[in-house]
Amino acid sequence: MNEEPTAPVLHDPSRHDFASDNWAGAHPRVMAALAAANGGHQPGYGEDAYTARLRETVRRHFGPDAEPYPVFNGTGANLVALQAMAARWQSVICPDSAHLHTDETAAPEHAGVKLLTVPAPDGKLTPEALRRYTRDLGNMHHAQPGVVSVSQTTELGTCYTPQELKALAAEAHAHGLRLHLDGARLANAAATLGVPLARLTTEAGVDVVSFGATKNGALYGDCVIVLDPDAVSGLAYVKKATTQLPSKARFVSAQLLALLDDELWLENARHSNAMATLLADGLSTVPGVRLAHPVESNAVFAVLPDELAQRLCRRYAFSTWDPDRGLVRLMTAFDTTRQDVERFVEAARDLAG
Amino acid sequence: MNEEPTAPVLHDPSRHDFASDNWAGAHPRVMAALAAANGGHQPGYGEDAYTARLRETVRRHFGPDAEPYPVFNGTGANLVALQAMAARWQSVICPDSAHLHTDETAAPEHAGVKLLTVPAPDGKLTPEALRRYTRDLGNMHHAQPGVVSVSQTTELGTCYTPQELKALAAEAHAHGLRLHLDGARLANAAATLGVPLARLTTEAGVDVVSFGATKNGALYGDCVIVLDPDAVSGLAYVKKATTQLPSKARFVSAQLLALLDDELWLENARHSNAMATLLADGLSTVPGVRLAHPVESNAVFAVLPDELAQRLCRRYAFSTWDPDRGLVRLMTAFDTTRQDVERFVEAARDLAG
Amino acid sequence: MNEEPTAPVLHDPSRHDFASDNWAGAHPRVMAALAAANGGHQPGYGEDAYTARLRETVRRHFGPDAEPYPVFNGTGANLVALQAMAARWQSVICPDSAHLHTDETAAPEHAGVKLLTVPAPDGKLTPEALRRYTRDLGNMHHAQPGVVSVSQTTELGTCYTPQELKALAAEAHAHGLRLHLDGARLANAAATLGVPLARLTTEAGVDVVSFGATKNGALYGDCVIVLDPDAVSGLAYVKKATTQLPSKARFVSAQLLALLDDELWLENARHSNAMATLLADGLSTVPGVRLAHPVESNAVFAVLPDELAQRLCRRYAFSTWDPDRGLVRLMTAFDTTRQDVERFVEAARDLAG
Amino acid sequence: MNEEPTAPVLHDPSRHDFASDNWAGAHPRVMAALAAANGGHQPGYGEDAYTARLRETVRRHFGPDAEPYPVFNGTGANLVALQAMAARWQSVICPDSAHLHTDETAAPEHAGVKLLTVPAPDGKLTPEALRRYTRDLGNMHHAQPGVVSVSQTTELGTCYTPQELKALAAEAHAHGLRLHLDGARLANAAATLGVPLARLTTEAGVDVVSFGATKNGALYGDCVIVLDPDAVSGLAYVKKATTQLPSKARFVSAQLLALLDDELWLENARHSNAMATLLADGLSTVPGVRLAHPVESNAVFAVLPDELAQRLCRRYAFSTWDPDRGLVRLMTAFDTTRQDVERFVEAARDLAG
Repeated sequence: MNEEPTAPVLHDPSRHDFASDNWAGAHPRVMAALAAANGGHQPGYGEDAYTARLRETVRRHFGPDAEPYPVFNGTGANLVALQAMAARWQSVICPDSAHLHTDETAAPEHAGVKLLTVPAPDGKLTPEALRRYTRDLGNMHHAQPGVVSVSQTTELGTCYTPQELKALAAEAHAHGLRLHLDGARLANAAATLGVPLARLTTEAGVDVVSFGATKNGALYGDCVIVLDPDAVSGLAYVKKATTQLPSKARFVSAQLLALLDDELWLENARHSNAMATLLADGLSTVPGVRLAHPVESNAVFAVLPDELAQRLCRRYAFSTWDPDRGLVRLMTAFDTTRQDVERFVEAARDLAG
Repeated sequence: MNEEPTAPVLHDPSRHDFASDNWAGAHPRVMAALAAANGGHQPGYGEDAYTARLRETVRRHFGPDAEPYPVFNGTGANLVALQAMAARWQSVICPDSAHLHTDETAAPEHAGVKLLTVPAPDGKLTPEALRRYTRDLGNMHHAQPGVVSVSQTTELGTCYTPQELKALAAEAHAHGLRLHLDGARLANAAATLGVPLARLTTEAGVDVVSFGATKNGALYGDCVIVLDPDAVSGLAYVKKATTQLPSKARFVSAQLLALLDDELWLENARHSNAMATLLADGLSTVPGVRLAHPVESNAVFAVLPDELAQRLCRRYAFSTWDPDRGLVRLMTAFDTTRQDVERFVEAARDLAG
Repeated sequence: MNEEPTAPVLHDPSRHDFASDNWAGAHPRVMAALAAANGGHQPGYGEDAYTARLRETVRRHFGPDAEPYPVFNGTGANLVALQAMAARWQSVICPDSAHLHTDETAAPEHAGVKLLTVPAPDGKLTPEALRRYTRDLGNMHHAQPGVVSVSQTTELGTCYTPQELKALAAEAHAHGLRLHLDGARLANAAATLGVPLARLTTEAGVDVVSFGATKNGALYGDCVIVLDPDAVSGLAYVKKATTQLPSKARFVSAQLLALLDDELWLENARHSNAMATLLADGLSTVPGVRLAHPVESNAVFAVLPDELAQRLCRRYAFSTWDPDRGLVRLMTAFDTTRQDVERFVEAARDLAG
Repeated sequence: MNEEPTAPVLHDPSRHDFASDNWAGAHPRVMAALAAANGGHQPGYGEDAYTARLRETVRRHFGPDAEPYPVFNGTGANLVALQAMAARWQSVICPDSAHLHTDETAAPEHAGVKLLTVPAPDGKLTPEALRRYTRDLGNMHHAQPGVVSVSQTTELGTCYTPQELKALAAEAHAHGLRLHLDGARLANAAATLGVPLARLTTEAGVDVVSFGATKNGALYGDCVIVLDPDAVSGLAYVKKATTQLPSKARFVSAQLLALLDDELWLENARHSNAMATLLADGLSTVPGVRLAHPVESNAVFAVLPDELAQRLCRRYAFSTWDPDRGLVRLMTAFDTTRQDVERFVEAARDLAG
């Protein structure tokens, strides 16, 4: 009578691919947090006990002025942040590799925000590169930059150092611009660099962060974290208008607490980073394979012989990044095992033979 | 060693209010479905096994042409649907009580969609009322209606009959307009009317539905269901640009399956409806209280003496709907118990004394 | 050799209708101003000598802080003003008869600006009416009013008194809102009320005006006039992005100078107002005809017997305002003659017989 | 009594610079056309006799399916065209030098239209370059190209040949995309290439043209010309919502007739082109000066020694195009005289000494 309800399993829960860290599910401690937050009634839209606690936790990590706004996903976090940071007539400078620009189906422009892109072969923006657009400030014929947005880790799996971020923030602020950090994989960067989250954000002069939880082991959910309250305007209204106000917000906050309260975010990031390094080390010994970028997080970019790539992708899912160059991207996740990696490298070696 | 992870409980899981059906958490069978869908890797963005199964289930309920698009929430479902239905230069006719118009912080207009409102004291649009705007068709100085949007149940807790919806669809289609149904509480309407979901949608001529799961017992998630593929354009792109493409989509689909596969949607709706009726019956016996609208779903609108309302809201959360008229709204949910209702009525009777 | 170029005349330059003041052409002094400003090169985009002079002239009329921004037309003036006044997340309160709302084909919403309408049977907004929306300030679920917009004259040809405008401005400012005046026919109101332009704008607390020139005798062109510089943000950029930055701006400014420098604006307004009064007086003696609104500018609203209306409109163009009530609108212009009016009244009397 | 009105002249009508063809005023035959169209009442918004005649004239030039939509300016023409061509979810491919992208203050993105740019050192797009974005068609994570937009002449003063345009149209159409031509200086290209307007538009497969009149000698006004009616949707509504519906449309049409009816467009274009060639020939003999691009229209791009540029710009206005390279742009107009050019070259030679 009082038995636990069950539901059908339609997939193979033992299978791990290298396609994306969002092919993984949720970490067991995240699931436990959801269960604990369930039951009974709690105020909607962020007036609940879990969101209140989240504020404390976020301030512990990001400093006493930090204000968290839980949202559904990363594109939502970015779009809410940029709209709250940029006035109606301002644009956003970003590298041409920015997820914002290449992988969000024109979401920013759909909301009226022009992206001013800068070529960035290694995925990183430099202070010097801002000049291309800051020189247009005050010229009524040109788009007016109001925000700079960079990704940490970058879309190529590399990391900005705290010094690099500081220099960007200084240059942006010197021109009256604000700095946004797309931190879909900020946890991985902090794990790689061995620094607390604040070192890469608040202390570096970042104004607003899109903090990624989904790729770090959440079921769903990310968080806009405002570090300088003067950098935003009307955020709560923009958030609702952008469809990013969860009604049962307690569950997003509970997941963020599960990740941030007991360092699960770091544990997950360290693990996936370690698996990526293991994978890179293994792959680099496979004949014909070479790494394309330094491995500084949970992404491995490798150039594979065409035939090898074709054979491998019949067994494992991964991304073809640039077919013209034979470049593929392999992602590890919090649940990638040493065995998963070893089998993949083994398979590559066999098929390369 | 192998013990289950646990997480802190920060709220009182035994407390049930009457503020909103989204103050409730998730149904245990929904939680079980999430657990079953977890583990291992599954393709992101809807290419997973649960979303594939969802297509079958949705077609069973809504007919063979139905196509589901899982999204995060109701505002998102509405915005995606309307943008896919209305060309860039088209507007949307809706009652002036529409959630779209009054409670979504200008989300439609933020996305460039004008709402053409019609006064609707009982929350319902009539075919005759469309004429106010359809007569502007072809006049370049006036907003051009392209879509009609109605809510089922209405924001006042009342239900359109299948005949009423048919008449609206016929009038809309006669002018080349499409019919959208905001079904945040469609389940409650179907339960009240005792008809299958298709009777209120596909068979009535509705073109696109926002199907509500969050208020029906999901943790999060709703679903745009396209009933006539010719009624939409570019929906998948609009969905991503509107920030409503869940990366770990399997979990939204798994929840929808939990609700739709074994009639849990109906069980939950029937229960919350029954509790609302019980509540209305009880309240109507309290001196000084009178019901403001017929109770046709899980909402009870009642006029309370000021002093009673003030006393009651110190014990229970509920909405003040129109302070000038002393009108309050009381919502029941899938987890509202008979005891919750009885205690509330008891309290009202005591405080009215 | 040196003969003046000529061009074909394709219309009847002696014919005057009562359809709209924008059916009229340009005043001869406006044409002379265009000719005087022609020839040679002048900097584009407002850096010319005529726009510099315009600033002085506008300040003479509107006060020392006034800043003019010449634009192409009235919809453009309104849209530029509202976007510069309202943050991305703010909405605009206006009467439901506002030209903005009913006759601009959703231009504001197309640009992301929601209109919060208030029923206004006589076309006028009252301070009390703002409360319907100001009470939502700070509530994240509701559109946030940031601007109040009223038309002077109203769309029904009536005028706000300076006191009425002051009361509106005070109420708006008390809630942190700004007041925009759609002055497509501001000249007519000033002529009727016998007050200088500043009395109806700067001195009344209006923050930004759309000043109408096209309907006052210009060939094309209107002007956004900012009265309080703190009321706007990024106006020059919004103006260009809204396609309202004339490259050969000297010609818009030259026309505005022709109207504003020697009181031609007032002469034209007085004349068209006088013709409307003459027309109203004449019509009110025609059997079966009655005036629907007080005639306070160059618009006459009259209820005509159906048959009379049908016969009359075979001879003269005018607007059917509300076919259900037999309500028509007759507009006079700067070039309407006493004879035009007398013939029209004569015709009405004949056909009514 | 019956004397002509006059107006003050505030500038030097004998001065001609080389800053832009929009620093020039209006051609005397354009002024004559405005005078002829003035007087009496004509229906507003394009229902007048001049706009009716314009349709015939445009069809004579562009073919029997062509449909003209007179607008105020070039940014307006582009924005109306692109919004009518691209569905809400579609983007526009253009060279990174496109006026649209660099000089319209984010107008397209402000209206929700993302620009997908391609590096184009000589200002021209090639069919091969489209592939970078057409390969994303159908991928829900990437912006979906719907339109290709090219400028004729390009922003560098060069011209696409009819064959080049045909190849672009073919490639665009093969992928279901439409081709838009920003023809702000289409007249100059036709004059250079010695072909009728249709050869560069209708016959080449262009779908919609922004036809420039302002830079060709009009007072104000340009024209969207739809060549394939299936390429657009809701254009009349988009035009009004984009603030580009002139109320006194007869005057825009009369100017277009003045240019297009008697080949004044060609006369003006030939003249300004000839003056540019004369200027280029003269400048190329000045020590230290070299031409940067072939002179194929009325633009001369030249590299000047720093000191010479600084001295020259104290006497004449022209554009510094790229300060880092010492690149300047010199534009001629319909009213540039041989003497203007000779004096400028003389001055350059003197100052270079």
